[in-house]
Amino acid sequence: MKIAILGGTGAEGSGLAFRWAAKGHDVVLGSRSAERAAEKAAELSAQLEGASMQGMDNSSASSWAELVVLSVPYSAQEKTLAALTEELSGKILLTVVVPLGKPVARVHRLPSGVSAAEEAQQQLGEDVRVVAAFQNISAHHLMDLEHEIDCDVLICGAKKADKAIVADLCADAGMRGVNAGSLPNASIAEGLTSLLIGVNIRNKIKNAGIRITGIE
Amino acid sequence: MKIAILGGTGAEGSGLAFRWAAKGHDVVLGSRSAERAAEKAAELSAQLEGASMQGMDNSSASSWAELVVLSVPYSAQEKTLAALTEELSGKILLTVVVPLGKPVARVHRLPSGVSAAEEAQQQLGEDVRVVAAFQNISAHHLMDLEHEIDCDVLICGAKKADKAIVADLCADAGMRGVNAGSLPNASIAEGLTSLLIGVNIRNKIKNAGIRITGIE
Repeated sequence: MKIAILGGTGAEGSGLAFRWAAKGHDVVLGSRSAERAAEKAAELSAQLEGASMQGMDNSSASSWAELVVLSVPYSAQEKTLAALTEELSGKILLTVVVPLGKPVARVHRLPSGVSAAEEAQQQLGEDVRVVAAFQNISAHHLMDLEHEIDCDVLICGAKKADKAIVADLCADAGMRGVNAGSLPNASIAEGLTSLLIGVNIRNKIKNAGIRITGIE
Repeated sequence: MKIAILGGTGAEGSGLAFRWAAKGHDVVLGSRSAERAAEKAAELSAQLEGASMQGMDNSSASSWAELVVLSVPYSAQEKTLAALTEELSGKILLTVVVPLGKPVARVHRLPSGVSAAEEAQQQLGEDVRVVAAFQNISAHHLMDLEHEIDCDVLICGAKKADKAIVADLCADAGMRGVNAGSLPNASIAEGLTSLLIGVNIRNKIKNAGIRITGIE
């Protein structure tokens, strides 16, 4: 699959890119700066024999891709998407964005009253299918392909078929994706991140995660 | 510990009561009807040799207890608490309440913009220490003492000491309590219930739960 990762030079974006490229996906890192994206892509490619990874500016990356991952800080979400409405049309936008407040360990309620994922959907309109996932994954061990991430991925979105595609991407990144319902439920996945940051702080650990029990 | 459970005749309230009584706590089931509470208490006591369990009306139960558990439907929360402000003063109110909307599998956003637990705290004022816990526990297996509940309990509240008391009650009910931060984070625990109901429906199961990974 042709996957573009906007904000692909950050820890989570590049970590997911690395795991997907290792599984044979065509991956493009997107960034405001094509140069920075190309540098990071070269750095990651050097660690992956035979893997395909390039860097482009966000617009070119979005045009090229079949599926686009949004991995920018929440503060950059609206502006990033505003420039890409046409490029994203007809595609799945997989958002991993988490809005954090102060203190970071307390759930952050956006003034809109909805999740960052729903804000993205409202901004982009019906031509883009927004799916939220990977909100609770610690970037810490993504670059170590042998490391088993002890965390399930909650997948929220309107369409079952789109969530199934994202579940396959979860599996390709070494994680189990769980259909967690419609897009408003992304507010739970987003808020869980704050809660898990608090668990990390209180327990002096770095990779608190969640597992859904009772399935199978 | 002297524990009163308001709404103690329901499935979750009576299940927790049963497990705590089995561990030697003094438990009183509270209900609007003292008769109904006494009947349920007698029914549960008959299954537990040597355990102490009584039934009272909500007001008497709250006056008697050291710690009060709120296990009523969300629709009854405000009215139930309005009648008990004095009885609850100086005590921990452990709320297990979850507001559900329609569809039940979609996170329910209260008009107040905060969690049911925070609404309780705002209503009761600073003399009552509200702690939220057990939002995600399926009542399904609580009455079977041998059954290991495969779910952690997220504990949210202002004071560490109060959360430690609740963590002990989690252990006494056979579960691990995890300090999940301040009271606003209860909105995540409450919303997770909707998400887990959806997991139950989609997977045709009855006891989806969550585990926090990475601790220890």
